[in-house]
Amino acid sequence: MLTITRRATFAAAHRLYRSDWNDARNEAVFGRCANPGGHGHNYVLEVTVGGDLDPETGMIADLKWVKEVMDRHVIDHVDHRNLNADVEILHGVIPTAENLARVFWHRLVGPISEQARLVRVRVQETENNSATYEEP
Amino acid sequence: MLTITRRATFAAAHRLYRSDWNDARNEAVFGRCANPGGHGHNYVLEVTVGGDLDPETGMIADLKWVKEVMDRHVIDHVDHRNLNADVEILHGVIPTAENLARVFWHRLVGPISEQARLVRVRVQETENNSATYEEP
Amino acid sequence: MLTITRRATFAAAHRLYRSDWNDARNEAVFGRCANPGGHGHNYVLEVTVGGDLDPETGMIADLKWVKEVMDRHVIDHVDHRNLNADVEILHGVIPTAENLARVFWHRLVGPISEQARLVRVRVQETENNSATYEEP
Amino acid sequence: MLTITRRATFAAAHRLYRSDWNDARNEAVFGRCANPGGHGHNYVLEVTVGGDLDPETGMIADLKWVKEVMDRHVIDHVDHRNLNADVEILHGVIPTAENLARVFWHRLVGPISEQARLVRVRVQETENNSATYEEP
Amino acid sequence: MLTITRRATFAAAHRLYRSDWNDARNEAVFGRCANPGGHGHNYVLEVTVGGDLDPETGMIADLKWVKEVMDRHVIDHVDHRNLNADVEILHGVIPTAENLARVFWHRLVGPISEQARLVRVRVQETENNSATYEEP
Amino acid sequence: MLTITRRATFAAAHRLYRSDWNDARNEAVFGRCANPGGHGHNYVLEVTVGGDLDPETGMIADLKWVKEVMDRHVIDHVDHRNLNADVEILHGVIPTAENLARVFWHRLVGPISEQARLVRVRVQETENNSATYEEP
Repeated sequence: MLTITRRATFAAAHRLYRSDWNDARNEAVFGRCANPGGHGHNYVLEVTVGGDLDPETGMIADLKWVKEVMDRHVIDHVDHRNLNADVEILHGVIPTAENLARVFWHRLVGPISEQARLVRVRVQETENNSATYEEP
Repeated sequence: MLTITRRATFAAAHRLYRSDWNDARNEAVFGRCANPGGHGHNYVLEVTVGGDLDPETGMIADLKWVKEVMDRHVIDHVDHRNLNADVEILHGVIPTAENLARVFWHRLVGPISEQARLVRVRVQETENNSATYEEP
Repeated sequence: MLTITRRATFAAAHRLYRSDWNDARNEAVFGRCANPGGHGHNYVLEVTVGGDLDPETGMIADLKWVKEVMDRHVIDHVDHRNLNADVEILHGVIPTAENLARVFWHRLVGPISEQARLVRVRVQETENNSATYEEP
Repeated sequence: MLTITRRATFAAAHRLYRSDWNDARNEAVFGRCANPGGHGHNYVLEVTVGGDLDPETGMIADLKWVKEVMDRHVIDHVDHRNLNADVEILHGVIPTAENLARVFWHRLVGPISEQARLVRVRVQETENNSATYEEP
Repeated sequence: MLTITRRATFAAAHRLYRSDWNDARNEAVFGRCANPGGHGHNYVLEVTVGGDLDPETGMIADLKWVKEVMDRHVIDHVDHRNLNADVEILHGVIPTAENLARVFWHRLVGPISEQARLVRVRVQETENNSATYEEP
Repeated sequence: MLTITRRATFAAAHRLYRSDWNDARNEAVFGRCANPGGHGHNYVLEVTVGGDLDPETGMIADLKWVKEVMDRHVIDHVDHRNLNADVEILHGVIPTAENLARVFWHRLVGPISEQARLVRVRVQETENNSATYEEP
């Protein structure tokens, strides 16, 4: 199986909390990630795409096109934004790394399927934490 | 000249804007960094300390002590915080990388001088951007 | 499939050799890794955990809890230790990267299963070498 | 399943184009990667090998031997070379990351099978782009 | 002294040789870097700029403007190019890391001086090699 | 001022303690770095060399020669060794990062001066700790 992976970055603010919980419960579950003013990360998004090798071009899909799909469907919506307040595609979603990976997968799987197959979406939050969504 | 450098990280939200400017002027000067909801970064703080080598220990200063000074005077104030709203040591300061380096220098220069000499404070905002404050 | 990965580091000394072999055979098989005084590494441990997304928290498992499990069952036993001499959980084991990945998997699979499912344990020894243990 | 991964680097020039296409078509498909003088990369090659743990040595295969196989069958052919002009093992192949991963897999699968099983070949072209060839 | 540093990357081919030397002498001096087909690198360019902090903006200079100057005067000329054949600003220059740092400094020092002061230009060729040009 | 920097790595065991101190005092000063069995690191050594640009070659000094000097005078003595027990050039020296930088400087300054000028020696012990020795 042959895949290509494209990496992109975005900077965003987020806060982990539920408005239907009180502060004590939010802090018990989410710790300092529930601090009222929020915090933020330099996120890394890695998208892995599989498919047949086009014998004429030696490519599965043009990596520039993969980047454009990532920009149009994910990065342009989240970069330099507050993930809790400003991002329609995350409305009603607690912006954990897991949820970002899951939402971004569903944003990308359709557009990528026009030329290839989406295999994996990885969202790295810090040098120590990441979440990955893969096809079943 | 012999120095040691200690690296630490913190995650914070920030927004570049002035409340005495209107939105158009903030956007003209600060671009998307002025987006109302703010964004955030995984900041890297590197503190460089010089001094004489203690012949008994082979150390300029204990790196664990340097880390404790960094935690107590900087990291504990900014980690998982909103640099515009929640951080007393940055009150009234536009949280650019330059200002962070400058403010952190002045927070650290006294405490570090108890055992050594502060030589350089570097604040990395993204993999592409950083600011450095050095002694004259 | 959704997973989260937590990274941690530890510094340890090790030596690859068998006491039931003579020096020449140890050197023939293990090369300079058999040097009598041993050497060491900054190891990186990456633990990948899968499971269902808790709809209330948006998390598979709390990454802080994953880190605590890693600390209690692995890191606290090996960090700043000599893997040949000081580490009970590695008693009788040649401390290759492969064996570390295998032993750490068996240390972690039970505790992690209390809240999620252990998917992968990766041990990086140097920037060029690593070993990975995955579920069958 | 237990695997080990070995990383190596090489520096090479390449150009993406087909001599049976005119310049306009080459540029339309390959963009600036078709620039006539070519360009280049610091490539990273990661080779993952699986197998049974030898109970006597605690190893799947000697990582030094894996490195020698990588050098003899891949690195020595491509390092400090022009992938379009100078490399016999890439003759007639458009040197995309996908094709490099595929060709290197077929170069390595035989020699590695003498002691273990080739599981994955990953070729990283830049910090943002990579291709991976895995066993079916 | 306060400085900011901006990092950018470019991919280029190069070859170290002199046309007024024969092959044997080129190979004796430049080794495999003189291979006829050339090779290439993912270069990293880091530009450090100093100046007074503008009290109104908290910035020495807008990092986006620094990036634009880097793009217009350096990156656009060298990215995805052959440094020996295609780059007018390197005409007649052996493209060593030292010469790149020196030439890029002289390209940038004028434009940067419109708003700040150029302090350092660093060109990284591989993860092991770099050259730096600093003000006297 | 023009400089080049060469990076190399070595893996070594070390322990911070003084045999003329008892265990309690060693632990009070050196903490877990005094653990009896020792621990280890993947060290990174960066050597910076300055000088005039040779107009014929475009080089300050051949980076391959710098690497050979580093190997012969430092790396070959410390790689895959125990810095307390096996390394003559560190005899009687507590192997702190500071002392390594200082000793390596004095090992390298003579040999480098045959073709250039030693400017800086940096020893990185972990991703968070390093020491640097520079010319006065």
